[in-house]
Amino acid sequence: MLTLYYAPGTCALATHFSLERAGADYRTVAVDFRRNEQRSPDYLKVNPKGRVPALVTERGTLTETPALLMYVAQRYPKANLGPIDDPFELARMNEFNAYMCATVHVAHAHKGRGYRWVDDPAAMEAMKQKVPQTMSECFTLIEERFFKGPWVLGEKFSASDYYLFTISRWLEGDGVDVARFPKVLDHRQRLARDELVQRVIEAQRPAAA
Amino acid sequence: MLTLYYAPGTCALATHFSLERAGADYRTVAVDFRRNEQRSPDYLKVNPKGRVPALVTERGTLTETPALLMYVAQRYPKANLGPIDDPFELARMNEFNAYMCATVHVAHAHKGRGYRWVDDPAAMEAMKQKVPQTMSECFTLIEERFFKGPWVLGEKFSASDYYLFTISRWLEGDGVDVARFPKVLDHRQRLARDELVQRVIEAQRPAAA
Repeated sequence: MLTLYYAPGTCALATHFSLERAGADYRTVAVDFRRNEQRSPDYLKVNPKGRVPALVTERGTLTETPALLMYVAQRYPKANLGPIDDPFELARMNEFNAYMCATVHVAHAHKGRGYRWVDDPAAMEAMKQKVPQTMSECFTLIEERFFKGPWVLGEKFSASDYYLFTISRWLEGDGVDVARFPKVLDHRQRLARDELVQRVIEAQRPAAA
Repeated sequence: MLTLYYAPGTCALATHFSLERAGADYRTVAVDFRRNEQRSPDYLKVNPKGRVPALVTERGTLTETPALLMYVAQRYPKANLGPIDDPFELARMNEFNAYMCATVHVAHAHKGRGYRWVDDPAAMEAMKQKVPQTMSECFTLIEERFFKGPWVLGEKFSASDYYLFTISRWLEGDGVDVARFPKVLDHRQRLARDELVQRVIEAQRPAAA
């Protein structure tokens, strides 16, 4: 049995979708960010980084979305969550996921998590002001250069699609009009109609209430 | 023939070490950051992100250090650059590399690349001031929780060791006394004595002159 620690609306959603699609034997535990539970002594024993997602396995706990998405893809090969038999295509998946993790998610985090990098409230405000620009620049590259279509990597669906879907849902909150990115918007709308996607979002809902 | 685009002293060093250890048929091209060559039209054709590293392969160009390290490990399995036959251990390598890329490197970048996230010079200065603290926090976690010893993942060397070595060399410049992290310091000193490591650093030197 795997255990996924998550908070609703965070990037943990991408791993949650992947576990559901894999048909994995897993349970979920919601971490309440409003009560700052991610910094509680109990949770820091699970993940000393104080972040989600964390996936507890029979061999130990794993963190970091790119690592988790590839782990689920390799552990459940029948789910077709990544091109695990082709090192070059797999590198393209990891490249996309690293960009989402280290550039796009980081750009977004400068809106609500500025305290990670500055103490001065005025500097935090300056960070927030630039988020629409940085997120727009990221999604311009995704739209024009990285997204192959109909899925991120091209003809084959992969866990990168769940990751893109998860983060593209943040655009409006970041002050970016997603309509500027028609491929990303179409991708998001297709996945939003997916029964599995709807089921997982619904499963996370009570914790958000 | 592979081509690695790099700039001296950047995180591209980790991929450079890995290619050398793999005995890969590769050449290197230095990108001159002092002349802002990474934003030149020619280089943006190679990597539209305007960053290094970029690895040109016979099937296309790959970027992002975590993706490149795993690609080299998979493409050259005899080099033993990662636990490629064990999905859990491989996830641990990817987890470590994602942390280096998305948290540690990002913390460091707030010193010299603050313009990525703010326009205001005072906010950039506020970012710089916190870098010693954020880098110390990252390396406290690495020292106390993530580093298994004698190598990052334990008994077996992996590309994560090259990545840690590359970034730990930035600590002094970030205002952090590496002596506070004896395991990291010992690891760095061991790799600094390695003949391959010395050869690659030397090979990058002319471009830095």
